[in-house]
Amino acid sequence: MGTATNKPDDKKVTPRSQDFSAWYNEVILRAELADYSPVRGCIVFRPEGFAIWENICAELDRRIKRTGARNAYFPLFIPQSFIRKEASHVEGFSPELAVVTHGGGKELEEPLIVRPTSETIVNYMFAQWIKSYRDLPLMVNQWCNVVRWEMRTRMFLRTTEFLWQEGHTAHATREEAEGETLAILEVYRAFCEEFLAIPLIVGRKSAAERFAGAVETYAIEGLMADGRALQCGTSHFLGQNFARAFEIRYLDEKNQLQYVWQTSWGVSTRLLGALIMVHGDDQGLRLPPAVAPVQAVIVPIWRKPAERDDVIAASRGAFAALTQAGVRSRLDGREGVTPGFKFNEWEMRGVPLRIEIGPRDVAAGEATLARRDRAGPTSKLKSALNRLPESVGAILGEMQTGFYRAAKSAMDARTTEPADFESFCQQMEGEGGGGLAYVYWCGSAACETKIREQTRATCRAIPLAQDVAPRGCIVCGQTACERAFFAKAY
Amino acid sequence: MGTATNKPDDKKVTPRSQDFSAWYNEVILRAELADYSPVRGCIVFRPEGFAIWENICAELDRRIKRTGARNAYFPLFIPQSFIRKEASHVEGFSPELAVVTHGGGKELEEPLIVRPTSETIVNYMFAQWIKSYRDLPLMVNQWCNVVRWEMRTRMFLRTTEFLWQEGHTAHATREEAEGETLAILEVYRAFCEEFLAIPLIVGRKSAAERFAGAVETYAIEGLMADGRALQCGTSHFLGQNFARAFEIRYLDEKNQLQYVWQTSWGVSTRLLGALIMVHGDDQGLRLPPAVAPVQAVIVPIWRKPAERDDVIAASRGAFAALTQAGVRSRLDGREGVTPGFKFNEWEMRGVPLRIEIGPRDVAAGEATLARRDRAGPTSKLKSALNRLPESVGAILGEMQTGFYRAAKSAMDARTTEPADFESFCQQMEGEGGGGLAYVYWCGSAACETKIREQTRATCRAIPLAQDVAPRGCIVCGQTACERAFFAKAY
Repeated sequence: MGTATNKPDDKKVTPRSQDFSAWYNEVILRAELADYSPVRGCIVFRPEGFAIWENICAELDRRIKRTGARNAYFPLFIPQSFIRKEASHVEGFSPELAVVTHGGGKELEEPLIVRPTSETIVNYMFAQWIKSYRDLPLMVNQWCNVVRWEMRTRMFLRTTEFLWQEGHTAHATREEAEGETLAILEVYRAFCEEFLAIPLIVGRKSAAERFAGAVETYAIEGLMADGRALQCGTSHFLGQNFARAFEIRYLDEKNQLQYVWQTSWGVSTRLLGALIMVHGDDQGLRLPPAVAPVQAVIVPIWRKPAERDDVIAASRGAFAALTQAGVRSRLDGREGVTPGFKFNEWEMRGVPLRIEIGPRDVAAGEATLARRDRAGPTSKLKSALNRLPESVGAILGEMQTGFYRAAKSAMDARTTEPADFESFCQQMEGEGGGGLAYVYWCGSAACETKIREQTRATCRAIPLAQDVAPRGCIVCGQTACERAFFAKAY
Repeated sequence: MGTATNKPDDKKVTPRSQDFSAWYNEVILRAELADYSPVRGCIVFRPEGFAIWENICAELDRRIKRTGARNAYFPLFIPQSFIRKEASHVEGFSPELAVVTHGGGKELEEPLIVRPTSETIVNYMFAQWIKSYRDLPLMVNQWCNVVRWEMRTRMFLRTTEFLWQEGHTAHATREEAEGETLAILEVYRAFCEEFLAIPLIVGRKSAAERFAGAVETYAIEGLMADGRALQCGTSHFLGQNFARAFEIRYLDEKNQLQYVWQTSWGVSTRLLGALIMVHGDDQGLRLPPAVAPVQAVIVPIWRKPAERDDVIAASRGAFAALTQAGVRSRLDGREGVTPGFKFNEWEMRGVPLRIEIGPRDVAAGEATLARRDRAGPTSKLKSALNRLPESVGAILGEMQTGFYRAAKSAMDARTTEPADFESFCQQMEGEGGGGLAYVYWCGSAACETKIREQTRATCRAIPLAQDVAPRGCIVCGQTACERAFFAKAY
C-alpha cells in the first residue's frame, strides 16, 4: 500500500484474469470503497465501503445477540504487563504491537499496548465480575478497532488497524465452552453463506495455525476467485489458559472454587475483501442483494426536453413504491452525466439491479431491469411499472440464491482430492492458483511443514465430520489420522 | 477514578441530596452500567450501559443520515505533523495527547497520535477527494473511540478514552457551512429533548469556550439535578481554517480555485452521564422509555407451588404479546430470588415499567403495573391482561412526555435572571448548586474571567435569538451586547 490516492484514470479496471491483485485494488479505489491513508498500513473506509460494513454489522449483531451474548466495550489500551500474562499469547502477538509510551506530555510509568485483541483486558474484568456459578455463562461481544503492526498490508485483508467484533465468553464446564465455540462457528457459517452468499469450508485448525493462547481454533474459510483461500472468521476454545492467567474462578454449587472455561471469536472488515474476491468481475464489484447498501438503482433516461417530466415522474413513482416495499433504492437523477456513465458507475459499485425508465417504457407502463449477475441480453427484462415492487423483490431473492450457487460451483470446481503428493504439488503450482486440496494427512508438524515449503499451501480446515477409513498420509504415507483442506491462503 | 471494582455492599445508594457525586458513581456501579478499568482514566461499558449507548447510536444515526451525511471510518492514528498544521488546534490539544512511539518492535520515525478528534486526518483525505464544485457538499460522519489524556476523570463525563460520533463537512460557500452548523445543532437539540427527554439551552459559545480551530462553536447544554450544567453536544463552524491548513480547494463553476468552508460536530458517551444526572433518583437510574433497552419488565409472583404454573403461563403470554407489539420487554423468571429483590434491581436499572403478575391478577385477568416515574400509591395501576399492549403503549408514551416535562420544570425552576452581580454570585454559591443564570453581558473576556474567578461559573450558551434592548453588563455595567446563560459546569 502506498500513501497516495491512486485512482486510475482509464474507465476500465485491469481484467481480473490478467492481474488479480491489481484488479482487486482498482475495484476498491474505483468503487470508492476505501482509500489509502497517510498512516502506514491504515486505510480509510469511504462511505460506499463503510455502508457494506454497516449492513454486515447490523445483521451479524442480530444473530450474535440471538445466542445470548450482549455487547459491551472495553478499553483500547492494555497495560503491557497484561499481554505478558498468558505465555503463548504474548509470544504470538509481541511482534505486532503498537505501544503508547507518552500521555499528556509525560512518559508513562508502564507503556500501554493498543489492543491487538482483547482477551487480556476482558479477562481481567471477568475476574472482577465472576464470583459464583450464578454469574455464568458470561457472554459479551464488542465491535471495535484493533491494531496489529503488519509488515505487508493489503486493503481490507491485512491492515495495521482494522474493525471487527470480538466475542468473549466464560462457562462453568468444558462441554459448555466447547459447545459455545462450535455454536458461534455455525453462526458465522450461516451468516456468510446466507447473507454474503460466500460458500465455505468449516473446520478445526492445525496446531500451527492456532490462535496464540487457544486450545483449539476453528475457522470458516472461503475460496477466492484466484484459487487462494481466505480465513473469514475464527472461533477459539481457550480452555482454562486465560482463566489461570487472570485467576477467573467461581464458587460452584458445592461451594468449591473452580476455574472457568472460555471461548473467544471474531470476524473483521476482511469480509469486505472476501465479498470483492468471491463475487467481483471485470466490471467491478457485484454485491449479493442482502448485503448491498443499494439494491436497486433507478436511472431515468430521456433525450428531448419534452420527455423529461414524464420520465422523472415515473422514476420518482418507482422509487417511492420500491422504498415503500422495503427495497433499498436510489434514484440517480443527475443531469449532465450520460446514462452510460451512470450504468458503469453503478455496475462498478456492485448494485444488484438497475432499473431504466425511458419515454418508451413510460408509454408502455413498463421499466427495463438489468441484472448485475448476468451479462448480455439475458441480463435485461421488462416489468410492469405498477408491479415493480413484486418483480424486483422476486428477482433480488433469486439473485441472492444465484450468487451463492455460482460461488459454490466455482469453489467445487476448484476443490480436488489429489491421490498423491506429486499431483497435489502440481495443482498448487497450476494456473488456477491452487484451489482447495482435500487430502489425507497424518497430522504431523513435519508433513505440514513439508507441504508449506514445497507448495506454499497451508492447512486451512480439518472438517469436524471425519472419514473413519484409515488411509495413507499424502506426504509420508503413514496412517492418516484425519482429512484436511489445504490451500494457498491470503 | 480508582482501579478497583468498587461495588457497594449495602442495598441502597447514597441519597442524591446527601452527596451527588457519590450517588452518581454508585448508581453507575450498582446498575452495572460501567466499571472502573485497570487502565488510567478508562472505563468499561458493561452490557446494561452499552445497550443504552446502542439505542442512542441507532436513533441519532438515523437522524444524522436524514441530513445527507454518510458514515465512514478514518484511521485511529494521526501523524504528529498533522496535528501541528492548524495553529489553535495544536495549542488546544497538545496537553491531552497519547503518543505511539513504537510499532512492530521498532521505534517509529514519526510518532503517531491516538486521535483526540479527527479534523486533521479527515481533512487530509478531503483534500484528495475534493476537486470540483460537483464534489460538494461532502458530508461524512464516523462513530469511533477517541483519546484525550484527562487529568481528572469522571465516569461517562470525562474519561481518557470515550466513544462518540464526529461529523465533518465541506461546502462551497460560507452560508451553506453556517447553515449546516446550525442544522446539526437542531438535530442534536431535537434528539436530546425528544429521545432522551433532556431539556436544553442552545446557543453560541464565547471565545473562551470555543473549539480549538473553530470560528464559532455552538452547543446544547443540559442542567443536571445538582444545578450544574453539562455540555451535551457541540457543532463547530470551522470557516476556512482547516481548508487552508490542508489545502482543500475546489474548482468553482467559473473554473476558479476556492477554499472550502467547513463544519464539524459531535456528541459522546457523556450523554449517558446526562441521562443519569437529569432523570435519576435515590432508587437509581430512571430511563425515558424511548432510550430504555428494557421498557417493561414482567415479574411473576407466587408463593404456593400450585400457583406457579398459571402465573408463569400468564407472564409468558404477556411477554409474547408485548414483544409482538414492539415493546422491548423482559420476563424475569428467576427463581431463588424474591420479588422485592427483583423490584429493586430493575428500579436501579431504570426500567420504566414493571408488570407484576400474581395469582390474584391471573384470577381477575389483570396485571399490576408500576411506573418508575411515580412513587407511592399513584405509581401502581391495573390493566386487563388481554389489553396489556395497548395499556403499556399508552403509559410509555405518557411517561416519555412526562420525563421531559418534569426535567423542564426542574430546569426552569433553577433558571434565574439575576438583576445584579451580587445576586448572581449569591445564586452560584447557594445550596442549589448554582443553576442557570440568564444575564446581560458586555461580551468581554475581562468580565467573563471575573465571573469565573468569583463564582466558578462559565458562559454556557449565548442564545441565537437575542433581545435588542440595550442593557448594562451584569459585571461592568457597560452596554451589554448580548444575553447569555452562565452556570457552573462539568
